[in-house]
Amino acid sequence: MSRKILVLPGDGIGPEITAEAVRVLEALNKEGLNLEITTGLLGGCAVDATGEPYPAETRAKAEAADAVLLGAVGGPQWDTLPREQRPERGLLGIRKHLNLFANLRPAILYPELANASSLKPEVVSGLDILIVRELTGDIYFGQPRGVEERDTEWGRQKVGFNTMVYAESEIRRIAHVAFQAAQKRGKKLCSVDKMNVLECTQFWRDIFEEVAKDYPDVTLSHMLVDNAAMQLVRAPKQFDVMVTGNMFGDILSDEASMLTGSIGMLPSASLDENNKGLYEPSHGSAPDIAGKGIANPLATILSAAMLLRYTFGLEAEAVRIENAVRMVLAQGYRTADIYEEGTRKVGTREMGDAVLAAL
Amino acid sequence: MSRKILVLPGDGIGPEITAEAVRVLEALNKEGLNLEITTGLLGGCAVDATGEPYPAETRAKAEAADAVLLGAVGGPQWDTLPREQRPERGLLGIRKHLNLFANLRPAILYPELANASSLKPEVVSGLDILIVRELTGDIYFGQPRGVEERDTEWGRQKVGFNTMVYAESEIRRIAHVAFQAAQKRGKKLCSVDKMNVLECTQFWRDIFEEVAKDYPDVTLSHMLVDNAAMQLVRAPKQFDVMVTGNMFGDILSDEASMLTGSIGMLPSASLDENNKGLYEPSHGSAPDIAGKGIANPLATILSAAMLLRYTFGLEAEAVRIENAVRMVLAQGYRTADIYEEGTRKVGTREMGDAVLAAL
Ligand SMILES: CC(C)[C@H](C(=O)O)[C@@H](O)C(=O)O
Ligand SMILES: CC(C)[C@H](C(=O)O)[C@@H](O)C(=O)O
Repeated sequence: MSRKILVLPGDGIGPEITAEAVRVLEALNKEGLNLEITTGLLGGCAVDATGEPYPAETRAKAEAADAVLLGAVGGPQWDTLPREQRPERGLLGIRKHLNLFANLRPAILYPELANASSLKPEVVSGLDILIVRELTGDIYFGQPRGVEERDTEWGRQKVGFNTMVYAESEIRRIAHVAFQAAQKRGKKLCSVDKMNVLECTQFWRDIFEEVAKDYPDVTLSHMLVDNAAMQLVRAPKQFDVMVTGNMFGDILSDEASMLTGSIGMLPSASLDENNKGLYEPSHGSAPDIAGKGIANPLATILSAAMLLRYTFGLEAEAVRIENAVRMVLAQGYRTADIYEEGTRKVGTREMGDAVLAAL
Repeated sequence: MSRKILVLPGDGIGPEITAEAVRVLEALNKEGLNLEITTGLLGGCAVDATGEPYPAETRAKAEAADAVLLGAVGGPQWDTLPREQRPERGLLGIRKHLNLFANLRPAILYPELANASSLKPEVVSGLDILIVRELTGDIYFGQPRGVEERDTEWGRQKVGFNTMVYAESEIRRIAHVAFQAAQKRGKKLCSVDKMNVLECTQFWRDIFEEVAKDYPDVTLSHMLVDNAAMQLVRAPKQFDVMVTGNMFGDILSDEASMLTGSIGMLPSASLDENNKGLYEPSHGSAPDIAGKGIANPLATILSAAMLLRYTFGLEAEAVRIENAVRMVLAQGYRTADIYEEGTRKVGTREMGDAVLAAL
């Protein structure tokens, strides 16, 4: 049986960077992995072609696939469209549709790129955190939501509102993912909430305490979100695995990636209950450099490695890709975003070539 | 007429650090400021004495005062109390009761303390950001909230929920505070939201665009909260004044303070419509070092300076305190939290003495 991968290049630099990741997958495929790669439209390009950011055809292809590799979506030309047509609705749509509730975002600082960080070397050298973010619940999808006229304590006027909400089973399933991820790493899990203010997150903390009983080998701690935002800056290496809800995870995972200074290097995985997943770089669509052939394809190539690991259990192949990326860094290849004096500046395609050679 | 100040020492290191700030205020008072200082209970100490974190007596005193100077609240011994009795309910209670909707939190890096930051000197030297956080609305106070059984897509089960909500007039009034703060500084205002996901914050952005018309001399920009969390790490000096809602402000203002590495130096002000205000250090109650006489009183002393400036318009006296603090730093006085080799380590009281001498 073939392993079905749907590639969604998306917008901006998406097509350039996914092209390199696909070349890497195809190279491995020659060795009999039996990958079957198709492509589809998501985001702004889908709106342009069909009027919708997550069109029916893409939905069907996504359902049929075992894994999805995404470039990035979004760009200024779609920012003024009505809400439902904006590229990010496509991203939220596919996450929800495929039930991809577990978002795994490693924040790793490669030794060769230590200078890229805005933090002092001793604070970040060797940084290796995994952020587990719940991805299909919380205030992202909670109802009711909107803007409407209401009677308020200041008289009748418009109010904007959204709902943060988590059901017990949603918290339980992400807790299991997080504990199991911690088991495979340093066995330390820090759950982030705002239990001193939000009942929803007090509930989150209570459920985590319950699930913890199933994982006696993992040390669970809790941290308030404001403190977590501080501790990531002060001493990020104190963390092994951090887990939190969709909204706090959006903020903290981006903060954590930026600690490395090289967000162009960071992949991510978003998984359902059966390891079907969507894989994408942690960075955005960078419309300002799109089409110039200078974007860094490594986060997307590393996302392809995560894809082989998590969806297909192809650990050896995943490690081969990751080692190839380490090797090109050691060889001095750098795209513009991570370039520094004394290294060799290359474009997107040349970087792909280098990875292929290193494979 | 006298100027009425209510001092709420609170818990942990609160009593020690407010004592030093009160000495500074009393020293200035000898010159005829006509300050009338009373004290009261808030937080854990209030729970111990009365069963409530914000007791009626404190409410009455707070209403009668023109300004409140707070130490800090909280400690592990109260963490297991029922929600309504926890110390932080006292803090949330007084903010709401006094209608202190505008929280001003400067993040300033003093040149003498540049080494304390975990960021590279070139990234943070000269850092001077003002974060304006809305403080009486948002998901902190929104209804409905709680934990209850519901029918969900996964069957009948418990769910936790909270409500993010902003009324138009709440957004307008904090917008005016933020624009006016920017006018007095670098005339750059960055409003932070998550408009691509949350209708409530799209509404926030729309109102900010409207209010901007009243301030043609201020440049307004918008940033998504995840990007803001990254940009604070990457290049914090790009910001002049940043404004956001209560929840995002909680996270981003703590992240911004920690960029300086010396959160023991950072004051804050929380103001109502008429400049009545509550002033407190940005740091917490540090129960681990309470009673040892080693806590840093400078953030509280600087909070007293903000109090004189914002509530009483005593700009000259505020500047005198701020200059005295600068001077003791230049003289090499350091409490343990900001100590480094070659400086002079002092305790809380000695630091207060040094500031008094420098006045
Ligand atoms: C584009 C946006 C809707 C999305 C999110 O907030 O989840 C992005 O920031 C992310 O983190 O993948
Ligand atoms: C103690 C807590 C309720 C409070 C808040 O979240 O507002 C604190 O973190 C703060 O920022 O003053």
